[in-house]
Amino acid sequence: MSTASTSPAANRGSQPLTGVINAGSSSVKFAVYEGEQRILTGQVDGLGAHPRASARGADGGAMAPPDLGPTPPATPAEALPRLLPWAQQQLHGRGLDALGHRVVHGGMEFSQPQRVTADLLVKLEALNPLAPLHQPYNLAPIRTVLDHRPELAQVACFDTAFHRTVPDVAQAFALPWAYHEQGVRRFGFHGLSYEYIASCLPREAPAIAGGRVVVAHLGNGASLCALRGGVSVATTMGFTALDGLPMGTRCGELDAGVVMYLLRQGGMNADEVEDLLYRHSGMLGLSGLSSDFRDLLASEEPRARFAIAVFCYRVIRQIGSLAAALGGLDGLVFTAGVGENAAPVRETVCRGCAWLGLEFDEEANRANGPCLSKPSSRVAAHVIPTDENLMIARHVRAALSMER
Amino acid sequence: MSTASTSPAANRGSQPLTGVINAGSSSVKFAVYEGEQRILTGQVDGLGAHPRASARGADGGAMAPPDLGPTPPATPAEALPRLLPWAQQQLHGRGLDALGHRVVHGGMEFSQPQRVTADLLVKLEALNPLAPLHQPYNLAPIRTVLDHRPELAQVACFDTAFHRTVPDVAQAFALPWAYHEQGVRRFGFHGLSYEYIASCLPREAPAIAGGRVVVAHLGNGASLCALRGGVSVATTMGFTALDGLPMGTRCGELDAGVVMYLLRQGGMNADEVEDLLYRHSGMLGLSGLSSDFRDLLASEEPRARFAIAVFCYRVIRQIGSLAAALGGLDGLVFTAGVGENAAPVRETVCRGCAWLGLEFDEEANRANGPCLSKPSSRVAAHVIPTDENLMIARHVRAALSMER
Repeated sequence: MSTASTSPAANRGSQPLTGVINAGSSSVKFAVYEGEQRILTGQVDGLGAHPRASARGADGGAMAPPDLGPTPPATPAEALPRLLPWAQQQLHGRGLDALGHRVVHGGMEFSQPQRVTADLLVKLEALNPLAPLHQPYNLAPIRTVLDHRPELAQVACFDTAFHRTVPDVAQAFALPWAYHEQGVRRFGFHGLSYEYIASCLPREAPAIAGGRVVVAHLGNGASLCALRGGVSVATTMGFTALDGLPMGTRCGELDAGVVMYLLRQGGMNADEVEDLLYRHSGMLGLSGLSSDFRDLLASEEPRARFAIAVFCYRVIRQIGSLAAALGGLDGLVFTAGVGENAAPVRETVCRGCAWLGLEFDEEANRANGPCLSKPSSRVAAHVIPTDENLMIARHVRAALSMER
Repeated sequence: MSTASTSPAANRGSQPLTGVINAGSSSVKFAVYEGEQRILTGQVDGLGAHPRASARGADGGAMAPPDLGPTPPATPAEALPRLLPWAQQQLHGRGLDALGHRVVHGGMEFSQPQRVTADLLVKLEALNPLAPLHQPYNLAPIRTVLDHRPELAQVACFDTAFHRTVPDVAQAFALPWAYHEQGVRRFGFHGLSYEYIASCLPREAPAIAGGRVVVAHLGNGASLCALRGGVSVATTMGFTALDGLPMGTRCGELDAGVVMYLLRQGGMNADEVEDLLYRHSGMLGLSGLSSDFRDLLASEEPRARFAIAVFCYRVIRQIGSLAAALGGLDGLVFTAGVGENAAPVRETVCRGCAWLGLEFDEEANRANGPCLSKPSSRVAAHVIPTDENLMIARHVRAALSMER
């Protein structure tokens, strides 16, 4: 690896260049930030099968993607060494000052992003059993860079960290205590998104920033978070990202007795149940049509309508549950793909919160907000676009500046 | 079987004598009602191992239990034929007019109690896979009586029936549609208790009887039900009685991902997971001490306190969720063993509902109610003792009178 040889020191004085990496089992998404400014974004999909790369510049326009070469990478860890020189090329030879990685699990220990060291990586790898479908894929590229480019600073940013403020009583499942101690508890996820939204509230919705707010991160993955003064006190996702709201293809909250039924009466094995609950349930399963809300909202099919009705009903029920955790509600914030764009979903949810004192502004909703509630409303409702990558870039900058 | 030969006609004019049977895997509970009056109650425990019988009269005093004989019965179905002549003896030779049975599952079809016929029994046995730990044991004694005493009227009363008014959107899990059609949905349980409480509301709490009420059935099993005008619109238990609130030894709501974790990383098989979730979790699991709230409330152990705190927290969260289903809350009713007797639990729950407008009356609570809220309270709180057996006896009388 002969790239990005410019040392961080060379960039001093200008805004640092931060690479943001989000690696999955067969894809890696990346972005480059100069300070708060995103100047590059892209992804490589289909790793291990038919990899395809794409990239966009600061203006959102498509640009020449990295060349994957005659023997394309089979994993994100293999792809990353090819992405770095390509990025440096796009940056006119300026090297990245640091990499920030989205890591699903920080376990019980990490409530803040962590500078990557060999010791840290061992600790994070020990959490693989808590998120076997994500954690190993998040960590593999970190190890590759640590082994081959030890001078390049890396920061691990955890989806769970923001929720470490949730009180123990809310984290606990009613299982034997030993499981609680082992870490079988409600960790919650989407933490980088909620942290970003919390950082926006003082500017975007100052009246509620210090109060009791439910943030609805509604995308292909979906969850809710209860904030008190910007601090997470409860969230709908649990030990895994399967729990809580129904999602694109995930079931959300499910009676554990149903899993037992599928294993016994249904004659399925654990792999088949996992495949069903993660990949064939949620909006896709109920509608039989699509996991994409755009498709469902455009459809006249009764089952598409039913799937949306179930989703909105569970959101409304969970907002009530989180309002109980907060002892009342001052504000509701919609974010992520569905939350930012699906006006009919927001309308159903807001109307279902009328009992909490939310007076809905239909016209503002059609214009995607930013404020969806009437001035007289006791509960304010807002749309605030999320930006998890920017949150990671900020964490990286903060980690670097602490070291200088 | 040579007993209870007095025909129902012989009892005409007097109040009918109704036997109520609640049969489990190794126990059978029974009661006899004359009209609304319970005149006999008892149980046989330890069937299949070391059976013990006990009985009490109308005044609650212990009485000579049925003699189980030199070859004691091994199942409730075997015990019942010995209970019937014993009951007739206690009733001075008067035979029972009919038997009412608690049956856990009425599936999607039965929203009312049903007179037992051979056809009905076949339909109910087809539901065994939905509740394999309960349904077969509920049904076996019904079949014994149907085979040997076909002239004795029997009525099956379902724990699920009262919840058949819950809208489809609330019953649905976000699983592929075929499962919803097969009956993998939130059936809800404790229906006979909720129906009884709903029947009491016009007399006990007329101000809220027509309104939005959450009933908290808190016992060794525990669930909540949202009533609108006395009709169930949502409930916390799901497909099985494992879901919802934490219970004596059951886990209540649990991320399905935890089940997958136990099966894979935990190396457990389905039997072991089922045993863990049904028999070693809940209050017992968290406290490591007892499944009984009396023990936990009397303990100074931090884990006993934590178990109670988790329980109350989940009740408060779920009341918020059910208030959302109702679009607000007018009343809260506590019932069953813990709900009727555990003042500290009621206090924590009521204080956690202050945000809904519940003004708690501490002194009234210490006296076990019946009203726990101040006169100025927007949300009324009550204690109303439940009586599922009486509800069954009423259903039996209604079924018989329809036939006369």
